This record gives sequence, structure tokens and C-alpha cells, in this order.
Amino acid sequence: MNETLRIQQSHRSIRSYKPDPVSDAILDQIIAAAHRAPTSMNAQEISLIVVRDAEKRARIAELSGGQMRVAQAPVFIVIAIDFHKTDLGVRKAGQTQIIHESMEGFGVAAVDAGIALGTLITAAESLGLGIVPIGSIRRNPQDMIALLGLPPLTFPLVGLCIGHIKDDMPLKPRMDIKTFRHDERYDASGYGTTCCLDFYTTILEWAEWSLVPQFARLPELFKGCLTTSVHQQQIRISVLVWIFDELSPRHFDEAHGE
Amino acid sequence: MNETLRIQQSHRSIRSYKPDPVSDAILDQIIAAAHRAPTSMNAQEISLIVVRDAEKRARIAELSGGQMRVAQAPVFIVIAIDFHKTDLGVRKAGQTQIIHESMEGFGVAAVDAGIALGTLITAAESLGLGIVPIGSIRRNPQDMIALLGLPPLTFPLVGLCIGHIKDDMPLKPRMDIKTFRHDERYDASGYGTTCCLDFYTTILEWAEWSLVPQFARLPELFKGCLTTSVHQQQIRISVLVWIFDELSPRHFDEAHGE
Repeated sequence: MNETLRIQQSHRSIRSYKPDPVSDAILDQIIAAAHRAPTSMNAQEISLIVVRDAEKRARIAELSGGQMRVAQAPVFIVIAIDFHKTDLGVRKAGQTQIIHESMEGFGVAAVDAGIALGTLITAAESLGLGIVPIGSIRRNPQDMIALLGLPPLTFPLVGLCIGHIKDDMPLKPRMDIKTFRHDERYDASGYGTTCCLDFYTTILEWAEWSLVPQFARLPELFKGCLTTSVHQQQIRISVLVWIFDELSPRHFDEAHGE
Repeated sequence: MNETLRIQQSHRSIRSYKPDPVSDAILDQIIAAAHRAPTSMNAQEISLIVVRDAEKRARIAELSGGQMRVAQAPVFIVIAIDFHKTDLGVRKAGQTQIIHESMEGFGVAAVDAGIALGTLITAAESLGLGIVPIGSIRRNPQDMIALLGLPPLTFPLVGLCIGHIKDDMPLKPRMDIKTFRHDERYDASGYGTTCCLDFYTTILEWAEWSLVPQFARLPELFKGCLTTSVHQQQIRISVLVWIFDELSPRHFDEAHGE
């Protein structure tokens, strides 16, 4: 196994960081990796906002519902959907941009944001740094937008803490590879019996913020498809409960063995 | 610069593949990397469908509007949103899953699909293989769903060709890093003047299929927010025009220098 695969296969999210700064040179390299990552049709509709200012990170931690790792890790990178840049180009060409009104636009940009995030993660981990993705920046999007000075047609989708590892973490369990990888055709025949839906229980709380507030900005961005949904949705708590089967110590040993 | 960063910073999408197969051992390693990649709250709501059968790849190429690389590359991996797995767990716990009805659910899953995709890309490239992401599997989603035997509450979001490189490709240009990276606060002050919105022109055609057809399945998945949009949207052609400024030969040289 090469070093890149070894790094990727030992991924675990880090919740505790040293105060030591990440150097400019290191950060430049990590961001250069994401800058080179592919986007659909090379549209480059992603922007990163790199936050190192301690006060600003503390504010983001607060806006994210008390995610204190954001305040603790020296670097926080916001990955934003950015149809502002594309709109400038489209206007310059005398055309009217419509991609930001469609689900296709949101889906494409969210996938590309994920590719950028996945690239940042592997890049940072290759340098021995710890990371943890933060989705709860969507909890108070209007305040996040104001804090980061984001223009119209952008949306702060997800964030990433980067820093030097203080306390390392064990690898979190994954369901059996059979629930993840399907060959030629989806095969759920083993689910719930030989596979992993009964044994290990994790309760995932999609809290109240998971529906309306963080998408207050989205109608502007994707007005065609979302204005209705925001009105329709009630603030609810959805509890996703995972009951894994046969998640034996073997799984943990294998994971830690990487 | 370490080897992982070097690989990531020399990413280019490959359009021409040798017929040589990718071995089981290599494929296992690449997929193990994506299996370990993080998902929001460890929800693991992503599934991969690995297609190596030549006839099936030819059919996917056809369904994707003639993406012949899918037929040519020996491996094609579909990255699917999978709220079927989560639903099984939720039902087992006597709860009712609602995440699949919300924009939050779609956004989270699309980001996690992107993380998995970005991880697969770096993993494959670390082994010297070529890749190209394929978004146009969304062109005929119902046929894709049937072909892959996907159950309800899943959606084939994006695909990836993997194979041995026949003809290498140059690195595609990227807009200036100043349009991608913002420090502390979004800064568009240089756009269109010192930056890169005027020089290089690429016309990105979001063709007719970019709106309605590929989301015919989505209302089922995200009914709360999407049924309306599908009715409202007209099939249109959106042309995104990029006019980059000052994309001098220097940019290409730098890129190729990796």
C-alpha cells in the first residue's frame, strides 16, 4: 500500500488541537491541492474562505452551535458555493445565468464542494495534521454570510478545522463494506441479516436547525426550487438511528490496524 | 512537497484509456479509501456501485449522452445517495426517517458523495491510474436506476471512470488563486481587473438535460422541496460563459511544472 492510501485508510476526525499555528507554506500547499481538484465542466464555482483570526473563529464556533473545535484549531476553512464568480463571467458575455436557480446547480456545486473538501482532508492529513469537517456552519447562515462578507449567489456549505493533533482519536466504525460497495448491481440481500444493521447503535440527531434556518439564504440562490420548500418545511427533529449488526471487535481491530 | 500533494496538485482528467483491466487488489484499495472517508455524523448514506461489465458500461455511456470514456475505461463507479440503508436502520428503531425529504438531506449527501469522489480520485491517481468524473449519469436517471437495481430512496448522483492512461492530458487552466482563496473575508475587489475574468474564454454548455430529466427521481427522494421545482422548471439551455483575465502562458507553465 502506498503512503497516500495509507493516509486515506487511516482517516479519523480529530476533536482536540494544539494551539500551534499552521505555517503559511503548509497552508498554501493544502489549498493548492484543492485548487487543482476537478469541478464539473471546469466551472470552478467553489470558493474557500480561510479563517485564522482567533476572534472570528470563536464567533464561528458560536454560530455553529458551540463547535469549540473551530475556536481551538488554528485554521478554519469555509467551502462556499460561489455562483457569484460565474455570474460575473456570464454577465460579461451578455448572457443570463440560470444555473443558480436549479437543483442541478445546487447538486453540482455541493458535489464539487465535497470534492474540494475531500482533497483538503487528504492533503492536510498527508502533512500529519488533524482535521474535522463542520456541517453546522449552516445553522446560522445569514450571520455566517455577514461575518465572511459573502456576496449574493454564494452559500457557505461546509467547513473544515485544520490543526496539529493534540489528542488522537480512534477510527470510527464503518458498516460492513458490503453495505458500501455493490458490484455491477445494488445488492441489499444481506442487509439486516449477515450484514450490519442490528448490532451497533448510534443515534444521530438531526437537530432543530437541520431544516429551515440554514437555508434561509438558499431561496435567493436557488429560488426556483426552494422557496416553496422553505415554507412547507416545519422545524422538526429527525432522529436517525443506526442499528448495526455484527460490528464485532474484528472491525475495530482491522480499522486500527491501518 | 510530499508525494500525496504532488499527486493532487497534478490532477488532470483523462479522456483516453487502455483496455487493460484494473486488478481486484488495486480496486479494493481504492474503495477502502473511500469507505474510510468521513460522512456527516458518520451516517454513511453513500453507496458505490462498481461496474466492470463491458456491456453495462456501454449502456451507461449511452444513457449519459454518449460518454464513450465510460465504455472505454475498464472500471466505472457510480456514487449514489443512499437513504435506503439509513431508512432500514431508522425503521428497525421504530422511528420514521425524514432526512430524505429535506434540502438538508440532499445537501449533506451530495457533499458526502463529493468527499467520497475526491477520495477515490486521489486514491486512483496515487496508483498511477487515470480518472474522469461523469456528471451526465443524471441525464437518464430512471434508466440508470433500473440498470443498477437501485432501491427507493437512493439516487445515482455522479460517476467516475478509472483506468490505465492511454493518452495523457494537459492540466486544465484554473482561474487565479485569488478567485478561489479568500483570507478572513470574501474579497472580490480584484475580479475583472487584476484578476481573471476577461482573458480566457470557455463556453460551458449546460445542455437541455441539465434541468428536468435527471431529477425525475428526486421528487420521490426529496418530495417536500422538489415536486414544485420539477413542475416549475422548463427545459432550457443555460450557457455559462467564462471569460478569464490574464490567464497567461505562465499559468499553464506553472501547472505543468508540477
